[in-house]
Amino acid sequence: MEFNEKNKGFFINDYSEGAHPKILKRLSETNEQSEEGYGEDLFTKQAKEEIKGLLGANNQSEVHLVSGGTQANLTTLGIMLKPYESVIAPETAHIAVHETGAIEATGHKINTIPTEDGKITATQILEVLEEHEDEHMVLPRVIYISNTTEVGSCYTKKELQELRAVADDHGLKIYLDGARIGSALMTKSNDLTLEDLAKLTDAFYIGGTKNGALLGEAIVINNRELQENFRFAIKQRGGLMAKGRVLGIQFATLFDGDLFFQLASHANEMADLLREGIHAEGYKFLVETESNQVFPILPEPLIEEMEKKYVFYRWKKIDNHHTALRLVTSWATKKEKVEAFLKDLKG
Amino acid sequence: MEFNEKNKGFFINDYSEGAHPKILKRLSETNEQSEEGYGEDLFTKQAKEEIKGLLGANNQSEVHLVSGGTQANLTTLGIMLKPYESVIAPETAHIAVHETGAIEATGHKINTIPTEDGKITATQILEVLEEHEDEHMVLPRVIYISNTTEVGSCYTKKELQELRAVADDHGLKIYLDGARIGSALMTKSNDLTLEDLAKLTDAFYIGGTKNGALLGEAIVINNRELQENFRFAIKQRGGLMAKGRVLGIQFATLFDGDLFFQLASHANEMADLLREGIHAEGYKFLVETESNQVFPILPEPLIEEMEKKYVFYRWKKIDNHHTALRLVTSWATKKEKVEAFLKDLKG
Amino acid sequence: MEFNEKNKGFFINDYSEGAHPKILKRLSETNEQSEEGYGEDLFTKQAKEEIKGLLGANNQSEVHLVSGGTQANLTTLGIMLKPYESVIAPETAHIAVHETGAIEATGHKINTIPTEDGKITATQILEVLEEHEDEHMVLPRVIYISNTTEVGSCYTKKELQELRAVADDHGLKIYLDGARIGSALMTKSNDLTLEDLAKLTDAFYIGGTKNGALLGEAIVINNRELQENFRFAIKQRGGLMAKGRVLGIQFATLFDGDLFFQLASHANEMADLLREGIHAEGYKFLVETESNQVFPILPEPLIEEMEKKYVFYRWKKIDNHHTALRLVTSWATKKEKVEAFLKDLKG
Amino acid sequence: MEFNEKNKGFFINDYSEGAHPKILKRLSETNEQSEEGYGEDLFTKQAKEEIKGLLGANNQSEVHLVSGGTQANLTTLGIMLKPYESVIAPETAHIAVHETGAIEATGHKINTIPTEDGKITATQILEVLEEHEDEHMVLPRVIYISNTTEVGSCYTKKELQELRAVADDHGLKIYLDGARIGSALMTKSNDLTLEDLAKLTDAFYIGGTKNGALLGEAIVINNRELQENFRFAIKQRGGLMAKGRVLGIQFATLFDGDLFFQLASHANEMADLLREGIHAEGYKFLVETESNQVFPILPEPLIEEMEKKYVFYRWKKIDNHHTALRLVTSWATKKEKVEAFLKDLKG
Repeated sequence: MEFNEKNKGFFINDYSEGAHPKILKRLSETNEQSEEGYGEDLFTKQAKEEIKGLLGANNQSEVHLVSGGTQANLTTLGIMLKPYESVIAPETAHIAVHETGAIEATGHKINTIPTEDGKITATQILEVLEEHEDEHMVLPRVIYISNTTEVGSCYTKKELQELRAVADDHGLKIYLDGARIGSALMTKSNDLTLEDLAKLTDAFYIGGTKNGALLGEAIVINNRELQENFRFAIKQRGGLMAKGRVLGIQFATLFDGDLFFQLASHANEMADLLREGIHAEGYKFLVETESNQVFPILPEPLIEEMEKKYVFYRWKKIDNHHTALRLVTSWATKKEKVEAFLKDLKG
Repeated sequence: MEFNEKNKGFFINDYSEGAHPKILKRLSETNEQSEEGYGEDLFTKQAKEEIKGLLGANNQSEVHLVSGGTQANLTTLGIMLKPYESVIAPETAHIAVHETGAIEATGHKINTIPTEDGKITATQILEVLEEHEDEHMVLPRVIYISNTTEVGSCYTKKELQELRAVADDHGLKIYLDGARIGSALMTKSNDLTLEDLAKLTDAFYIGGTKNGALLGEAIVINNRELQENFRFAIKQRGGLMAKGRVLGIQFATLFDGDLFFQLASHANEMADLLREGIHAEGYKFLVETESNQVFPILPEPLIEEMEKKYVFYRWKKIDNHHTALRLVTSWATKKEKVEAFLKDLKG
Repeated sequence: MEFNEKNKGFFINDYSEGAHPKILKRLSETNEQSEEGYGEDLFTKQAKEEIKGLLGANNQSEVHLVSGGTQANLTTLGIMLKPYESVIAPETAHIAVHETGAIEATGHKINTIPTEDGKITATQILEVLEEHEDEHMVLPRVIYISNTTEVGSCYTKKELQELRAVADDHGLKIYLDGARIGSALMTKSNDLTLEDLAKLTDAFYIGGTKNGALLGEAIVINNRELQENFRFAIKQRGGLMAKGRVLGIQFATLFDGDLFFQLASHANEMADLLREGIHAEGYKFLVETESNQVFPILPEPLIEEMEKKYVFYRWKKIDNHHTALRLVTSWATKKEKVEAFLKDLKG
Repeated sequence: MEFNEKNKGFFINDYSEGAHPKILKRLSETNEQSEEGYGEDLFTKQAKEEIKGLLGANNQSEVHLVSGGTQANLTTLGIMLKPYESVIAPETAHIAVHETGAIEATGHKINTIPTEDGKITATQILEVLEEHEDEHMVLPRVIYISNTTEVGSCYTKKELQELRAVADDHGLKIYLDGARIGSALMTKSNDLTLEDLAKLTDAFYIGGTKNGALLGEAIVINNRELQENFRFAIKQRGGLMAKGRVLGIQFATLFDGDLFFQLASHANEMADLLREGIHAEGYKFLVETESNQVFPILPEPLIEEMEKKYVFYRWKKIDNHHTALRLVTSWATKKEKVEAFLKDLKG
């Protein structure tokens, strides 16, 4: 994958640019203010309060800021599991495929479940539990899901409630990877809120990196048993930044008002434009999505033509003449680029 | 430790403020530039070239950028050791005391050596090796040192050469924690260069966080055997940032010209002023340092008086009436604050 | 699974009884002899020499004795892998299913391959390698196979040579789990020898527990790079027995002459009798095997009848009226029991 | 250390010979009995009941048998600790010195305490807790002690009660390594019982290997929270033996009547004879012990003379002319050998 070509249109991912200008502005304005280190600064405190304000009245969740998604996943899952316990995840899960064995490096097996759309069901969880019958096998303890999933699909409230019911029945915990939770919550069909996530999961994280921040994910610990000493876990895994203010400022800005949700909406709208335009040309999609990832199936010659002017990912070969692409939009995607893409698509 | 009090003078650490303005400026200027993720961006490439340019002709080291010091330490030491191998470190070592068992969490024991000044000698290494005689004990394989040390002292070239000789004789590797390498290299007595470090260590890191960056440490891998697949190790430990550009821009700015060294010089100069002023008042020091950490022993009533206007760390109780403080300066320390501190010291 | 019923015939596994009487006799005869601990005793030295004598002229393998199979697997695989490296294994692999995540507990992911017969092919290995393209994914480094496999099948020399060729082409290592290597080497179609295994694998183990010993597996390290300091690894994982003589005596007895192979032959012969008798009654098998595991598909009423007098494992439900059983024979299986079983099968 | 010389007297350790003859006899008698695997056999059940019978009325401890001490330590401590928690131990602790970093390999730091006699006090525990003040340091959670200690000393009931009080006050757990608990409980000054240990510790193990068994340690889990799923932990660490009967038979024999205690008494009596005889000759001891380890300080020429006929360990050089030896007795030590040793000592 060779790019860095300035004039090309980027649909390769949602982390190709820097931060939303408001974040940069706030970084500059507060730069000389002396603050305590390691996440004890005023900005981090403000960010935590803002986020907790969205989790419902009487909410008792705790919020922690770390630099990235893998860091969030390995730190949180690491404290949810005893040595012989495992995490159940769809086979497409980021932790199962694209984190270089980070969870296994903390000592834990991932039990993967086949999936077409990146989601797993309560029924599938029960099947995994039935297969694990004695001490010769790991003991599944956590359900890992992503929202949006790695293929752009989203969970409904009902689906999440069903997972919660199974979890409660069998003493399991639920962890939700929210690298793209902004996009998920702003899709047209979405019926979930951050407040729902605080009730239906034991822990989840709100992704900043892919929604306008330079870096940063906000881990939300809802299960009170998991809250104790969580800062020890962050420090041990290398996630406690000396200048924690950097994380604090970003989330304080994203959640001061609804900037976080505005940015996600913009990304989804740009994806909607892509979807509509591609559909209008008669092309099909590998999976139907409403979020900021679009998977059109295009003919090979057209793809090669588009690659001259745009950067995107060839996701999956369909047949000798067709490939499904992955197009990703973000807070930074400009409408003109989308329109140009669609115009070029028409040829 | 309660602070965030805006009018106080901060001598508590070297990470209380944001970044040097040139870094913020560069972040803003480049913000909309689309770049590849995960450290493959142009800024990171530039930063690596700049740093490699300081490591000597024909140098074959490799440079990687990560977000923090514990991250750098656990990632690098993790690949230097087989499961049963250990790292030798002074008992004051950051990895031995203040990283919440991060190295042990990767599976490795730390063999600590008593030290008064934070440094360890070649002779002490030999003693550790002699004690470890068979397979019932761990096999020491890496020597960990910090420069400056955790108590502000520095290694001379001769001391480092002696450690290298012992390491070569016994098949050991040397890892240098350079969280404050900028200050170390700019002390008056220093006779080491980055080029020396590239020759005398197997790996070290150049600390950005404590020398003007918002975040970031540059790991330099000199031992070619350790270079292979190092990015896998970074990713697995959660250190591969999606927007690696954030790290790239900081180091590209710090090492574009000699900004990195200027900032460290400023910190040392401010510390020199403190040292001279405190010495002029007849007070003694717990340890003699030339770097950006100063450890004066002051009488209790004076300390209490100073605490009303300044923030610093009570390092060690000397007797019922005296305590050694730790005063830390940084690139952001203003000369007026130092002068005010010294004036208030005179009473 | 309730048994311990003395009068039942045991076909449940190959570790239901104690040790071959020659082993018990040798334990008694040597009981008062004072010997060095931790595997430095004369018996262990003798056992190692006997085993090395079977590995070919000029062989430079090293042999180590440990108490059990999981111990052998986690200790050996643990030193074959860097932190970010993984082991490829069939989805039926003992390490993937029935060791409670022991390999993951050493920090490593297992990449599983679908299999019908418990074996994996060189082609499948190549597919796994192709899928693992960059540092966001683990780096597969070791191929794990079992012989016999967990479902009683065996590798041919040609198959193992093909795996070796792929391994050599791609810098992979091969580890063979020989919990039932005795049975594998004594099947009628077998064309492999211990000498072949020493040449074609980087490490393997010879299972004692399931072939006449009270306990014990002999790890054979063929790859010379893996030999260094292996005793450190054994000690660290809790596998270095103070009275290593216990292991030494067992293997010294099993390999003093061809007792080891005789016992395996007996187990296979008893399985052959079962196979022939069941086949003669017109029943089919889930998988065709030549080793000491037999998987007949029987009708439900007959199974229930047989369960009154015999202990065995219901392996897999075929349909509402048929289930595949697993019948296991061992060095201790008496011909009369087999004949009684077959007689009862006829009804 | 070269020995295996048949005519020498062994005082080198307490695992130089095989097992008490009653154990070998029972192994032979039960050899053909078909039993369930993995510790579900009748012998193991019997052994567990016998041991539980010694732990007091209404006792709710659980007992598990594993093959060795390091296995017992790493398995049990592994489930007592969260990732960022550490174990406090004397600097002489077996886990801190002679287990090749087995505890660190499970991810946990050991905080060592200086000690002269191998024991640690409640006061020392408090000091460690005070030093560990925040999330930059590990969180001490378990107190590890050995009884007898590695240098042959023993805890009194009062000392153990004081440790328990500190543990209760600060939410710590106590783990007692009983590799030589038999000898400890049979010393003349001992006022502890297994029942006391069940009350005063969260877990401990009863050492079989060094008190007449071929192999085997009985882990006793008293803290009910630690009991759940312990077999998963054993399996994961490679400690669940297929022929668990081997362990069951040994402990069932040792605790069928008071054989276990008789054997320990014999070892202590032989050590008493050594102590008295050496003392009568006017020699001093490095530490005063009542257990099966004796540490006389002898002049160099005499040591060299004794080495011609006896095997023992040179423990510590005292000065240029004197060295402290370690003499160890066991259930297998013959009185004639002790008398011969003392006679040769007189010259």
